[in-house]
Amino acid sequence: MPNKTKLYKNPIGIFDSGVGGLTVANAVVRLLPKEDIIYFGDTAHLPYGDKSPDTIRRYSERITQFLIDKGCKLVVIACNSASATAYDYLVERFGQQIPIINVIDPLVEEVAKQGFREIGVIATKATIATGIYEEKLSTHPDIRVRSLATPLLVPMIEEDFFENRISHAIIKHYINRDVFRDIEAMLLCCTHYPLIRKEIEMLFHTKIKVFDNSDVVARKVQSYLTHHQLLNDEREMEHQFYVSDYTQSFEQITRLFYGEKVSLEERVL
Amino acid sequence: MPNKTKLYKNPIGIFDSGVGGLTVANAVVRLLPKEDIIYFGDTAHLPYGDKSPDTIRRYSERITQFLIDKGCKLVVIACNSASATAYDYLVERFGQQIPIINVIDPLVEEVAKQGFREIGVIATKATIATGIYEEKLSTHPDIRVRSLATPLLVPMIEEDFFENRISHAIIKHYINRDVFRDIEAMLLCCTHYPLIRKEIEMLFHTKIKVFDNSDVVARKVQSYLTHHQLLNDEREMEHQFYVSDYTQSFEQITRLFYGEKVSLEERVL
Repeated sequence: MPNKTKLYKNPIGIFDSGVGGLTVANAVVRLLPKEDIIYFGDTAHLPYGDKSPDTIRRYSERITQFLIDKGCKLVVIACNSASATAYDYLVERFGQQIPIINVIDPLVEEVAKQGFREIGVIATKATIATGIYEEKLSTHPDIRVRSLATPLLVPMIEEDFFENRISHAIIKHYINRDVFRDIEAMLLCCTHYPLIRKEIEMLFHTKIKVFDNSDVVARKVQSYLTHHQLLNDEREMEHQFYVSDYTQSFEQITRLFYGEKVSLEERVL
Repeated sequence: MPNKTKLYKNPIGIFDSGVGGLTVANAVVRLLPKEDIIYFGDTAHLPYGDKSPDTIRRYSERITQFLIDKGCKLVVIACNSASATAYDYLVERFGQQIPIINVIDPLVEEVAKQGFREIGVIATKATIATGIYEEKLSTHPDIRVRSLATPLLVPMIEEDFFENRISHAIIKHYINRDVFRDIEAMLLCCTHYPLIRKEIEMLFHTKIKVFDNSDVVARKVQSYLTHHQLLNDEREMEHQFYVSDYTQSFEQITRLFYGEKVSLEERVL
């Protein structure tokens, strides 16, 4: 599988603790339709948010090794928890072998570059608890961050509630808070949230800019591959989707995150 | 603290992975107002649902030892995940020293005793995945169980959504399923769910019997203590509430589960 001589022909590896990272995979595939991807969802161990950093690093290491063995030319950590806790470790461990992109840095760079100063962050409890977005954005002295854990949103989305009156009411409950009154931009810092991005934009009456990880990360992948002459010129294979624990219900909800249902293959690492 | 000569004067120990088990503590205190209780919420490690059985056993063992050291005369595992995975282990380890009651067996016994045959079970993903209620109820050959994971309910309750139109819509989404069409009884198998019991009864138009763990377990505690001459005749101390990781937000939501806000003391085990 690995193509050593024509590295640009090789696939892009993307992983997450579950199937939410398929929003990132989908953004990559839409922006770069000539690229092959290999996706790995660590469904046996989700959610990563409750695991210790050491455990998340160990799982992420195994998956990255799997993606390297599959010949990937680039690895995308499509998971906020793993990006927050395992990125530095993976770069140290595999940085000589393969470039690694996380979902946090591209979003932080983009929002700072566009000059926003009053920034809202919503994410899972676990991501908010790491304080990673505040930490990364604090290197820009003019930026003020207000963050909120929004624990109902992931189960809400996985239960297929969006663009209906229940999801409207739940989202309003979170974003109509005083803490977010003067924000200019809202960052959706969970790979599930691209599915409710339109709804959030609508509820803010499109007065503020809403960012999610997916498109920003896809553009980062594009710019990296372009800059290093690694863009593929023609797809070579079917995209591959692996999970560490197969259930029909995971396969069912791939439709939500990837836009179409995909076939999942179980691979225990 | 331990009172060896007048054991009946000693407190009842109750533990959970978090503060949800306070619904059980509250039911015990209401039914047995002369009893002292010591509550331990393992908030540093919640939720237990995602942990391995070995890890849950290790945490439960430490907490049980803490409650024994505090002189408790009885331990209640007020957590479905720990009851499913650690009860047998704790009985083997501590059964000679202290009686242990879990939240599953009393509910299963009660519903079977009352002669219900078509039984619905709702619980977290983790509890449903253990299959414990099906397994225990399967010893009654006439009983048919239909179970459903209802992952939105815990965050919904913790976000203070109940008895409003959002919670109505979410609960309806779950219980108006074909799978529950002919049930005679519904078991609410999560220590958070007593808070929405009335709402569920109302949505079933009180045509079916709704059970939760809290009252049934409190009655089990009462019958055990009565039978073993261990009922207290007068409260000796303030109830004590410990958590392994103190946050204001945990203390805030004790109000939901215990009926009034209680002071939490941090104790790292």
